[in-house]
Amino acid sequence: MSNTAGQTIKCKAAVCWGAGQPLKIEEVEVAPPQAHEVRIKILYTGICHTDEYTRSGKDPEGLFPVILGHEGGGVVESVGEGVTSVAVGDHVVPLYTAECRECKFCKSGKTNLCGKVRTTQGQGLMPDSTSRFTIKGQKIHHFMGTSTFSQYTVVADVSVVAVNKTAPLEKVCLLGCGITTAWGAVVKQQGIKGSNVAVFGCGAIGLGVISTASIVGASRIIAVDTNPGKEEWAKKMGATEFVNPAQLPEGKRIQDHLVEITDGGLDFTFDATGNVHVMRAALEACHKGWGVSTVIGVAAAGQEISTRPFQLVTGRTWRGTAFGGVKGRTELPGLVEDYLKGNLKIDEYVTHHRKFAEINEGFHDMHAGDCIRCVVDMS
Amino acid sequence: MSNTAGQTIKCKAAVCWGAGQPLKIEEVEVAPPQAHEVRIKILYTGICHTDEYTRSGKDPEGLFPVILGHEGGGVVESVGEGVTSVAVGDHVVPLYTAECRECKFCKSGKTNLCGKVRTTQGQGLMPDSTSRFTIKGQKIHHFMGTSTFSQYTVVADVSVVAVNKTAPLEKVCLLGCGITTAWGAVVKQQGIKGSNVAVFGCGAIGLGVISTASIVGASRIIAVDTNPGKEEWAKKMGATEFVNPAQLPEGKRIQDHLVEITDGGLDFTFDATGNVHVMRAALEACHKGWGVSTVIGVAAAGQEISTRPFQLVTGRTWRGTAFGGVKGRTELPGLVEDYLKGNLKIDEYVTHHRKFAEINEGFHDMHAGDCIRCVVDMS
Repeated sequence: MSNTAGQTIKCKAAVCWGAGQPLKIEEVEVAPPQAHEVRIKILYTGICHTDEYTRSGKDPEGLFPVILGHEGGGVVESVGEGVTSVAVGDHVVPLYTAECRECKFCKSGKTNLCGKVRTTQGQGLMPDSTSRFTIKGQKIHHFMGTSTFSQYTVVADVSVVAVNKTAPLEKVCLLGCGITTAWGAVVKQQGIKGSNVAVFGCGAIGLGVISTASIVGASRIIAVDTNPGKEEWAKKMGATEFVNPAQLPEGKRIQDHLVEITDGGLDFTFDATGNVHVMRAALEACHKGWGVSTVIGVAAAGQEISTRPFQLVTGRTWRGTAFGGVKGRTELPGLVEDYLKGNLKIDEYVTHHRKFAEINEGFHDMHAGDCIRCVVDMS
Repeated sequence: MSNTAGQTIKCKAAVCWGAGQPLKIEEVEVAPPQAHEVRIKILYTGICHTDEYTRSGKDPEGLFPVILGHEGGGVVESVGEGVTSVAVGDHVVPLYTAECRECKFCKSGKTNLCGKVRTTQGQGLMPDSTSRFTIKGQKIHHFMGTSTFSQYTVVADVSVVAVNKTAPLEKVCLLGCGITTAWGAVVKQQGIKGSNVAVFGCGAIGLGVISTASIVGASRIIAVDTNPGKEEWAKKMGATEFVNPAQLPEGKRIQDHLVEITDGGLDFTFDATGNVHVMRAALEACHKGWGVSTVIGVAAAGQEISTRPFQLVTGRTWRGTAFGGVKGRTELPGLVEDYLKGNLKIDEYVTHHRKFAEINEGFHDMHAGDCIRCVVDMS
């Protein structure tokens, strides 16, 4: 055990004190892990749009003050009673989608959505309904069960997975969200090999979908983005074509254009934008009779998707995926091995690096069109 | 060949002269079948809500004057050049969903939506873009490629299937639409055995879904209808429970009630109402992580379905089916055999009988809560 085991640790964390406020680096107290909890020294973290969604105040379920972050990589500092799945010194990735292997969901064999810590995670708390973070005694909320914007964090033992120690944590931290989500959204569906695919949105998720679709052997991969700068990125990842909806003739809808150029529509489409209008276009770009559209992006609160039911009755399917349908504890170690063997791209997504003190600049980077992922060095 | 082969036949047909008008029995001229066409003496026809939808004028694509009807049974009177799939004297069911076995759709192995005669069928015409029906020289439109409200009709050879002659046509005519649609909506999905199912709407389609779900072994089948009179029907067909949304406590939504009584929601739901609000409820009554909702009902023109994309991202799937995903020429003969062996209910659906002269009363019957199907004797 480390010499800090059982002790409260004081370290730096980026705290968001209220909706719309920038993060502030603060000294926080991180209480020791309780039973079935794990304290992790976070070394690297990505910044994802979901962090920004809550920071901005658009998330009606956002709680403040909070320590955001859910794409982390670190080393286990200490474990609470009863923890058997990871050990001190393990290199780990926290998981915002837990995997308890005991609940109705885990045992169903049909979904990766574990029910074990869902309620308290949504309340910004640990499973015992308390927080491990304080600042001078004031409670700070956890976020997504991970809170990786802290040099030390505490997570439930069902919400963390150990990975190969030879893998660089500044890369595999990104498996905590975006890249895994994209990978799973593709590989968990049958029939993509030899099919035509359209991907709406060329951020990290969309590029990951393109890359994975290319690896599994989709015959045609159409990338769709209003930012012309994304064409080069999309093609580098495996897109065979790039369509900019903003450059279509006046009044031409993207779904109609795609149906035309594909002789009836796509076999598979993916929304990686979170925009409900794009989600509709992605569904309606599907081929009659068999096209399947997958929603990956998270829409703003209160927004709804719509279509004519005729779209479904004539054989299109509308589905979605969270964390790509991936069971984190079971599947992430294999993804890390795939990365180490060169079968899964991660390095290519890291366009920006920031020191911890510059984490707000990392959020600004994300909004720039040339950023895929910014990785923050927590040291 | 019959002695009318090659001749124009004069017979009676129920003609709808304009949107919202009652049907009028008229003497029509039915031209002989052209190449790859089949002329059928219709003996019996069901009346379906889709006929009423077009008759009422709500269908923006409705064309008048028209001979409606798409749930017929009859005998082949004569065939045009090149017809090999049916012969004079065969007992047949016309198919509004054709099966050419040659088009992209038929060959895909993924859908029953044949593309061969789709365009002209939608124009109320035969594949050569002309009509076989006239009244004193005035062209009358075909409907859904079937027009079974005529004592003789002409259909494309890809739009008709011969069935076992020992089967009563006054019963198996119903396989032309409702019962087959319901059957296919269930049996074409994996996993219904042992699952819990909710069926919204207990008309012929809904009851058919209930019956089929019971046969394939669903463990719990919840029928949902605002007409309390449907409870007895639903249970007779195999429903294990009946819920009347109109009798829930004030403000309680049907989807929330169903999620509560099923510990998280249904594995499979079916909309058999055509009401877009019910379609939404059916989706949202699905279990997080794996619930699948199938839209069977046809909504009124211009209406849209909506939901929060979160419903999909958390693992629900929204799909639809037309004619139950059934390939009519390939599969209907087997359904008739199932009926003859007692493995498929048809007789139970026939609550009303009408003579041809009373066909408008048959439409009124349909609107009464105690009618499942009215079969019209065309003689």
